[in-house]
Amino acid sequence: MSLSMYRLTVPVFQRGLGTMKTYLDKAEAFANEKRVDATTLVSARLAPDMAPLSGQYQRVTDTAKLAVARLTGIDAPRFEDNETTIAQLRERLAKTEAYLATITPEAMDGSGSREVTISPGGNKIVMRGDEYVATFALPNFYFHIATAHAILRNQGLPVGKMDYLGSFS
Amino acid sequence: MSLSMYRLTVPVFQRGLGTMKTYLDKAEAFANEKRVDATTLVSARLAPDMAPLSGQYQRVTDTAKLAVARLTGIDAPRFEDNETTIAQLRERLAKTEAYLATITPEAMDGSGSREVTISPGGNKIVMRGDEYVATFALPNFYFHIATAHAILRNQGLPVGKMDYLGSFS
Repeated sequence: MSLSMYRLTVPVFQRGLGTMKTYLDKAEAFANEKRVDATTLVSARLAPDMAPLSGQYQRVTDTAKLAVARLTGIDAPRFEDNETTIAQLRERLAKTEAYLATITPEAMDGSGSREVTISPGGNKIVMRGDEYVATFALPNFYFHIATAHAILRNQGLPVGKMDYLGSFS
Repeated sequence: MSLSMYRLTVPVFQRGLGTMKTYLDKAEAFANEKRVDATTLVSARLAPDMAPLSGQYQRVTDTAKLAVARLTGIDAPRFEDNETTIAQLRERLAKTEAYLATITPEAMDGSGSREVTISPGGNKIVMRGDEYVATFALPNFYFHIATAHAILRNQGLPVGKMDYLGSFS
């Protein structure tokens, strides 16, 4: 009994990007209600030497598109990492979703044994696609969603665990 | 090409609990260096209505042991959720690790199609074991590790992404 490489990547990433959209909706509503500039939320961070909210959006979309590109060999869109507004973050999510929507389950065939090269902490590592998904792509993806959540909570936003998990139906 | 239910649970949880141990080592060293009481870190939180660091340890160990118990039918240890010190959090991690060490890959046989009942947000939901792992157990597990990371970063600790991901060798 197992889960396919497709199930563990594309639908997981689509669900997570949906969560990231929900956070933007809540950030925008919060900014309107509190009469603050939403761009202050986009640049908010948990520590001076940690990436701001925009950086979490950049990393979560990069993790999704790069994982799929590495596993399928299908080129992903490139982004400039210069977002400063909620509208720009929404656009980045939409472009990532558009790319993911082009990926079929068949495109993941054989990806579990495909060699993937990553450089965590600057050290080049080659690993099998299935181990890459389990030890790098999924942990990284969830890290940046949860960190976006943490930044927004730290800024006083009423986001909750159900926003993070997404709906079950 | 796919990943087994075992690969996606027990080794993933063992790796994540190792990360949570690293954070405790770093929190203890930080407290000693800054001459602050380590229990202030254990009770630190990102927002007044959010669980403190100890709560993240409680949830991450619960997510691991409950996922395995639900998928295998093998009873997990119960904890009282009353930890206030780093030593107590270490003990909770150790007990969870001891339980995970008893689980064989064979114990996960058939778990992907096993019915699992959860109550996210108070709504009872029944789902297959494989969907439970992909949409609930893994996201929840990583949420609480990343939130522990966020709390420690917010408190000024020098924890980094490589501490979170764990070593690759």
